[in-house]
Amino acid sequence: MATEAPSERTRVHRLPERGDYDRATIDQILDEALICHVAWVTDDGEPRLIPTIHVRVDDTLYFHGSRASRTLQALRAGTEVCVATTIVDGLVLARSSFHHSMNYRSAIAFGTAREVTDHDEQLLVARALADHVAPGRAADARPPTDDELRQTLMLAIALDESSAKIRTGPPKDEEQDLDLPMWAGILPLGLTPGAPEPAPDLRGAPPVPVYVEGYRRPGASG
Amino acid sequence: MATEAPSERTRVHRLPERGDYDRATIDQILDEALICHVAWVTDDGEPRLIPTIHVRVDDTLYFHGSRASRTLQALRAGTEVCVATTIVDGLVLARSSFHHSMNYRSAIAFGTAREVTDHDEQLLVARALADHVAPGRAADARPPTDDELRQTLMLAIALDESSAKIRTGPPKDEEQDLDLPMWAGILPLGLTPGAPEPAPDLRGAPPVPVYVEGYRRPGASG
Repeated sequence: MATEAPSERTRVHRLPERGDYDRATIDQILDEALICHVAWVTDDGEPRLIPTIHVRVDDTLYFHGSRASRTLQALRAGTEVCVATTIVDGLVLARSSFHHSMNYRSAIAFGTAREVTDHDEQLLVARALADHVAPGRAADARPPTDDELRQTLMLAIALDESSAKIRTGPPKDEEQDLDLPMWAGILPLGLTPGAPEPAPDLRGAPPVPVYVEGYRRPGASG
Repeated sequence: MATEAPSERTRVHRLPERGDYDRATIDQILDEALICHVAWVTDDGEPRLIPTIHVRVDDTLYFHGSRASRTLQALRAGTEVCVATTIVDGLVLARSSFHHSMNYRSAIAFGTAREVTDHDEQLLVARALADHVAPGRAADARPPTDDELRQTLMLAIALDESSAKIRTGPPKDEEQDLDLPMWAGILPLGLTPGAPEPAPDLRGAPPVPVYVEGYRRPGASG
């Protein structure tokens, strides 16, 4: 809770102790989370929502998709969006049904979508996206051609209106429930990698990269 | 891809082979996913988005929160919502930056929020939510009192306008990229439990329940 909320709509009213407006905290959540959900309002006033890969570069949040996608086309022209990403850290099993909860870290950001049209920025975003998914991958992946960049719609929002909401720690039961006989506590949860599966059409015998073999999200514990 | 899309806005246009309108598929995603994101439009026409725990019971999707929450209050009265949940199954590392992707299963549902006011339905939802988070927990948790139910706002939408979108399988690179020297393939990812952490104020020595010790999401592989 290092700073004040940048706007009324980013302020955490209910359980304000869970609110955090420190950009370092927000950035860490955006960087660790693989995907986000982007919401916007259609011309008809209906809510829309898509999951998508994102990446933060300094003070900008980027996401992208096929230029042929109707969804992204609807988002293109100065659309106001609300972006949220949520990392689940564990289950909070209280004695009472009422006090069950989840440990999580979520970030939310409001902004107006800007299309990325500058060639250098497009290349930077393509690299950043590859490195967001698997830190180190951008150095190995074949960079996008101009034709591939033309097929890709990249959107950006400024991270000047954002907040985080975090719950940590054990369950908080009522005093009168503490003698109840059931187990209570936390079950930590985390996104963990399985064994890498080489592409069936892989040629030669390239080694599994260290960023795949030892995969972990940036900033993730454990 | 068992059935047709129930509406234009649930139809998957781009890469239609990823669309699935079979309720069994959609239900499996909703049941396995711990949380969802709910989007709606404010009276001022702005997009809003919150992460929340949900649970499906038959043809209804429920979510809940504190009645004191401004966010949920804004949602209460017949608000149209768009709900999405996304399970990340793995990273798709192609040779080209362009063909990088993610294996995922997402479900999306549109509906008009209905407040749950019937006492029996409220108790059913409380049990279902506990069992959604940790299947088996409802039998152990102390049920909500009438006062706790009064503090809780439960909302429901009918699952009659929903769809799923799924990507599976290896990277799909261009033929001319197949001789490039870098590794390509899938890195599976899954939400996995750590060691249970008993509440610091736990009294007696209740055993860790089997649904905690052997935790897995319903329908999850591995």
